[in-house]
Amino acid sequence: MKPRIYSGAKPDAIAEDLRPLCDFGEDGMSLEELKGLIEERLVPHLSNYGLPSFHSFFNSPPEAGAELGGVVALRHNQGVTNWQVSPGGAVLEELCGRALGRLFGFPETADATFLYSGTYANQQTLYMALHRRAEEEGFDFAAKGLSGFREPERLVVAVSEQAHFSVRHAVRMLGLGEKSLLRVPVDGRQRMDVAALQDVLSNRATRDHVCAVVATTGTTSTGAVDQAGAVIDACAGTRAWVHVDGAYGLAYTLVPEWAPLFAGFERADSVSWDPHKQLGVPIPNSVLFAKRGADFKRMAIYGEYFNREDDPYPNPGLKSAPSTRPMSALALAASLRHQGMAKVRERLRAPLEAVKAFAEKLAGAPDVELCHAPDTGILCLRLVPKGTPTERLDALQLHIFRRFQESGERSVAITRVGGRAALRFVAVSPAVTTDALLESLEAARAAAKDL
Amino acid sequence: MKPRIYSGAKPDAIAEDLRPLCDFGEDGMSLEELKGLIEERLVPHLSNYGLPSFHSFFNSPPEAGAELGGVVALRHNQGVTNWQVSPGGAVLEELCGRALGRLFGFPETADATFLYSGTYANQQTLYMALHRRAEEEGFDFAAKGLSGFREPERLVVAVSEQAHFSVRHAVRMLGLGEKSLLRVPVDGRQRMDVAALQDVLSNRATRDHVCAVVATTGTTSTGAVDQAGAVIDACAGTRAWVHVDGAYGLAYTLVPEWAPLFAGFERADSVSWDPHKQLGVPIPNSVLFAKRGADFKRMAIYGEYFNREDDPYPNPGLKSAPSTRPMSALALAASLRHQGMAKVRERLRAPLEAVKAFAEKLAGAPDVELCHAPDTGILCLRLVPKGTPTERLDALQLHIFRRFQESGERSVAITRVGGRAALRFVAVSPAVTTDALLESLEAARAAAKDL
Repeated sequence: MKPRIYSGAKPDAIAEDLRPLCDFGEDGMSLEELKGLIEERLVPHLSNYGLPSFHSFFNSPPEAGAELGGVVALRHNQGVTNWQVSPGGAVLEELCGRALGRLFGFPETADATFLYSGTYANQQTLYMALHRRAEEEGFDFAAKGLSGFREPERLVVAVSEQAHFSVRHAVRMLGLGEKSLLRVPVDGRQRMDVAALQDVLSNRATRDHVCAVVATTGTTSTGAVDQAGAVIDACAGTRAWVHVDGAYGLAYTLVPEWAPLFAGFERADSVSWDPHKQLGVPIPNSVLFAKRGADFKRMAIYGEYFNREDDPYPNPGLKSAPSTRPMSALALAASLRHQGMAKVRERLRAPLEAVKAFAEKLAGAPDVELCHAPDTGILCLRLVPKGTPTERLDALQLHIFRRFQESGERSVAITRVGGRAALRFVAVSPAVTTDALLESLEAARAAAKDL
Repeated sequence: MKPRIYSGAKPDAIAEDLRPLCDFGEDGMSLEELKGLIEERLVPHLSNYGLPSFHSFFNSPPEAGAELGGVVALRHNQGVTNWQVSPGGAVLEELCGRALGRLFGFPETADATFLYSGTYANQQTLYMALHRRAEEEGFDFAAKGLSGFREPERLVVAVSEQAHFSVRHAVRMLGLGEKSLLRVPVDGRQRMDVAALQDVLSNRATRDHVCAVVATTGTTSTGAVDQAGAVIDACAGTRAWVHVDGAYGLAYTLVPEWAPLFAGFERADSVSWDPHKQLGVPIPNSVLFAKRGADFKRMAIYGEYFNREDDPYPNPGLKSAPSTRPMSALALAASLRHQGMAKVRERLRAPLEAVKAFAEKLAGAPDVELCHAPDTGILCLRLVPKGTPTERLDALQLHIFRRFQESGERSVAITRVGGRAALRFVAVSPAVTTDALLESLEAARAAAKDL
């Protein structure tokens, strides 16, 4: 039997299996019994992200060094936002953030904070952008909020049509509402159309209300890399804060052959990154970089008993909202140190090359329509078997997706590109080879036959 | 030598020790070498939350069952917000949330979501409150944001003076600004003064603008438990959403002798809880309960390739903003199952009794001023040695705090109560006994002598 992504069981059957784990009665059970329960009833229903046939999402099992660091972090359970809570954890986070800044080539003025997820990183950076704008207008955003602006209802955050939905969450949570999102069209490569952005920024009616522009370097839908440098240049002379959402893509700036795609990102006001995506570090592991470290001061809230203003010790929690965060820096640092950057680059390059070769092999296939040339580790395509009526093609992709999902043997995602359903093949683990991708395509062809 | 909370080293010395961990060069190192590096250079600088002399914060080492669950979660590194990403993780989270709801006595309509921290839980619930208010006024808050309200600058969130600073972060991030916070005075027990809240709610000028009232059941400063039931009753007939911030305190509703303090909390619109505080589960582990599970629908964003609207499978991520969250439910469920609720209650009761007895023993001491009677596991006090001039007493508390921090042998916090500096003794681990607290008080007396 082929190794499965997971058991293939349905929600009700899984719930039945897991019931004893959530049956919080008076009596306890031995660790051994508990371990058996978890292994028999939960583990089979978990996804195995390390299989070559896992092509759906940005998840990976822990890399060996990351696991070592993760276990130490788990055993000591440090809260690292404050020196007194964890002297070692606080200093490690600060050191690691700055070392990562150098690794990615940010200027010396840059600083970083670990965060829980790219969603909160995007929210925080837009908050900092609003705060800076408020300073320019002479009021304290932390105190007055959006009401301090003359025309808050006209504030705009420009993003590409393909930006991640976390930006929608961000403007919702910030009280701006989704009406504030200005969706810039994409070009043929699914990247933000810079000429269209320039139009927005040269339009006198909107120009001054653009408080932030978000470039996505590695969209979650197709892996397209917005041209960070060109976006930043387009914003020069405007009041817009430029954020680069590199949650998925930033890691690939470390691979020399792919780095040119990202050129200029380090000139953005802020950049977000999720090492937990493809680096094999435990969730949560997200980082927000600010080109001017002092920009983080806008997040600080000093307390009487926590993060006191006169505290001479480092309190990394002054750079973000949560009062508690785990020692995420350790697993990341341990992983990079165990592998060394040469191996890290290989690890990152492998899936990029696999997807590139996959696209090349499919270029001439009569029954495959590629939705885009792959910038990074994602390829969206449509299976278009001869004789299938055009109006049934969307249903066909969904059928294949469902078959895969039900079988538990392999996993692709489904999405829409240019308004049409497409299968989305993702490679984040180095285990995903061109052959493995081709094998899944064969399976898709087989599944298509029985619609 | 006494066991130390941590090495006692200063930031520069720690940074020097940790430098090799963040030296991201080309070459790797063996796991063994890495392990040695971590154990020699990092671990001594981490805090040992399990020592009886740790009295400063809400941190604890992992309980055995929690550690077992945490290690499984780490090894499988599941993202649990979406069925396809982790079928077992998604179902476990839903099951566990509902089982916790029953454990705390929430109504059958209730539901829960795991979150990253109490800070984000408070933010999310205030977002949901604003969303509901917008619905009442006939517009979609997600789309229009605060600008949809007629007088957004008059919206108010009422909290006690002693509410956690995460509420400040919440109103900042929500675009309301801190001017929206209406700080209700506290009574002699450091609890929200319900009569003062009633005044606010009966004042025609403000009444209708109160969009939320936050009761803190277990303040971080003194452990005071706001009278949830009375606060909820005071809000009856108003448009306010009532949130109970039980990040620290909610666990103590499980201890019968302490439960009456919290009476009525389960009638609130929402309740937040941080199991990672005293239950010995790995950070992050936070939960937000909503009395009407359907209220979480206000958080949902459906995507083309993620959390699709027509997906027949459970996607817990539709109830919160982050697209990635770890399998926090496993460590919590494993811990409760391993211990059984009878032992969990004992674990929770021990530090409460220790602090209660500590306060009783100090009641007659001429050189100790208790700042409050302890509701839960925190006691704030001032050392007032005979002959110390009143104007030097604040400096004396700070001196003791610093001495402890520098020695690394014990850890208390410093705070201000009623405008005066106080030492804050916290007990969250069952290892903290009355004797251990008294020993620290003796050490404080000794430290006071050498000012």
